[in-house]
Amino acid sequence: MAQTSDRNRRFVLASRPKGAPTPDNFRLETGSAPEPGEGQVLLRTVFLSLDPYMRGRMSDAPSYAAPVEVDGLMVGGTVCRVAKSRHPDYAEGDWVLAYSGWQDYALSDGKGLFKLDPKRAPPSWALGILGMPGFTAYMGLTDIGQPKAGETVVVAAASGAVGSVVGQVAKQLGCRVVGIAGGKEKCDYVTGTLGFDACIDHRQPDLAEQLKAACPDGIDVYFENVGGKVFDAVLPLLNSKARVPLCGLIASYNATELPPGPDRLPLLTGTLLKKRIRMQGFIIFDDYGDRYGEFLAAMQPWLAAGKLHYREDLVDGLEAAPEAFIGMLHGANFGKLAVRVGPDDLPA
Amino acid sequence: MAQTSDRNRRFVLASRPKGAPTPDNFRLETGSAPEPGEGQVLLRTVFLSLDPYMRGRMSDAPSYAAPVEVDGLMVGGTVCRVAKSRHPDYAEGDWVLAYSGWQDYALSDGKGLFKLDPKRAPPSWALGILGMPGFTAYMGLTDIGQPKAGETVVVAAASGAVGSVVGQVAKQLGCRVVGIAGGKEKCDYVTGTLGFDACIDHRQPDLAEQLKAACPDGIDVYFENVGGKVFDAVLPLLNSKARVPLCGLIASYNATELPPGPDRLPLLTGTLLKKRIRMQGFIIFDDYGDRYGEFLAAMQPWLAAGKLHYREDLVDGLEAAPEAFIGMLHGANFGKLAVRVGPDDLPA
Repeated sequence: MAQTSDRNRRFVLASRPKGAPTPDNFRLETGSAPEPGEGQVLLRTVFLSLDPYMRGRMSDAPSYAAPVEVDGLMVGGTVCRVAKSRHPDYAEGDWVLAYSGWQDYALSDGKGLFKLDPKRAPPSWALGILGMPGFTAYMGLTDIGQPKAGETVVVAAASGAVGSVVGQVAKQLGCRVVGIAGGKEKCDYVTGTLGFDACIDHRQPDLAEQLKAACPDGIDVYFENVGGKVFDAVLPLLNSKARVPLCGLIASYNATELPPGPDRLPLLTGTLLKKRIRMQGFIIFDDYGDRYGEFLAAMQPWLAAGKLHYREDLVDGLEAAPEAFIGMLHGANFGKLAVRVGPDDLPA
Repeated sequence: MAQTSDRNRRFVLASRPKGAPTPDNFRLETGSAPEPGEGQVLLRTVFLSLDPYMRGRMSDAPSYAAPVEVDGLMVGGTVCRVAKSRHPDYAEGDWVLAYSGWQDYALSDGKGLFKLDPKRAPPSWALGILGMPGFTAYMGLTDIGQPKAGETVVVAAASGAVGSVVGQVAKQLGCRVVGIAGGKEKCDYVTGTLGFDACIDHRQPDLAEQLKAACPDGIDVYFENVGGKVFDAVLPLLNSKARVPLCGLIASYNATELPPGPDRLPLLTGTLLKKRIRMQGFIIFDDYGDRYGEFLAAMQPWLAAGKLHYREDLVDGLEAAPEAFIGMLHGANFGKLAVRVGPDDLPA
């Protein structure tokens, strides 16, 4: 069911998930591709980003952003080409970063679009290493984590869009970097290609012991994007004055209730007190939106020198989005997950 | 059993408490008052500070400071007078801030002593508003809490040595300040004398509802020195970008095990994430030892202008120390608790 110019396919939220999302929670609708009015452009989606935060949008629990309404379009970052333009600043064929959601086509008046130069970097990178995930990794690590050369930095989901950047930037800053990932293949990639000092497979039953052995001097910065049993293994290893930037808790996104006791809230607060730890949540564009240029300026020399590796996990066809998203929530992807919604080699 | 010049009474740790300390955990020993050698001074204890952190020193669980050994002297900050001096920098009668513990007399080579000028402020204030508790309040509030005029600051143990300074300084900085204290008398003092905007009695069963009503715009800074049910009431009221300086958790110091479930650790980390909150533990002299002068410089004009109130709860006689300390752990004191170990009106 390929992308065509006369039809707009879109995934809406059919129902709110209870626990892990299922394909039933999504519904594919088909309509006509819209026509741009004066001052508008028609965007054709080439790449749709799939990210863990979307799980939060599917729920109506209070959060930092409004939920997707039932029957509403699933939200998401996209890399698009301008298919038709009645806007003076855009021409047919232009590449743009947009937030047009899980669909083939969208209209835009230009607000919130960011033009991409395909000669500088592959356009899809704007969804990953040069976009929200990379920006999240860079600012959380450097501004909250404040790593110093020689310190030990630990990051989970280490082969993923955020974790891979956290670890590679920390290596550039002279840190000892330990990753945590799911399975031998990912761990081999993290140490072999990304250059981390060590990587622990969280599927091993002795995760805590292995992590302790890999961090003989304790942990100075833990970049938290997972939670769950990984955080449990990290907590006793945190050093005095450790920093814990907190950008995600994917392990608990599907939870429908709190885990059974004992209540470890006082254990966490007691550890923060005794070890004088700073733990800080952040939402990248809300907290650092004005520093995107600083991020790009830091990343581009490293990328140009071949010092940063980036792996994409592209799945083909909009119809594959729900299954790919569901799988990502338990680590089925390997690298930054995105959907190639339509061809990227046509003029528009 | 008054202080005499020829005898040194000292409390040692007889046994480690299981749960709340009891008088059995302390043992009073009597020996001879020591004689200073060349380069030493003999200190006579006038005031002994009693502080919640001492509960931690009675346990051998890992913490930020070494535990008191069984049969070892109970540690503690003191205000002393020099009884005999063979040290060129000290004369008989000098007032000093020391850390000489729960005893009548101690020898010192001068290291770690801090001379006090009784004309500037009552010497006992060096144990409270101008000492460790006040310094803790000031640095935690200003450096980690970073309150802005118009924001809402909440502090528990609001009539105590730390909480009273947190709230009064926050008022000077233009904040709305809500205290939490135990009982009507303390609450009346907190609003009437200290000038907080509101004070909630944590003994009321509807603590959470009352706190919510007193914080119509939510909480921007929560100065954490208590934990337990107060923190539970605070957590849902924290605003986005709230700051939680964490200097004590007195509610859990006597706990022998974690509370029953559910496990709210993911609730806390999830809240920190969604609301982009910073929570940070600190230990005053370890983290801010070099900024004591800055603290004094900020406090003295407010004190001179009569803008800060300070209440001491002085109990008489070294033998009263264990009972007073045990009571403090459940809020029996009213104001900064210290023991008047010996007379303060004699030449030395």
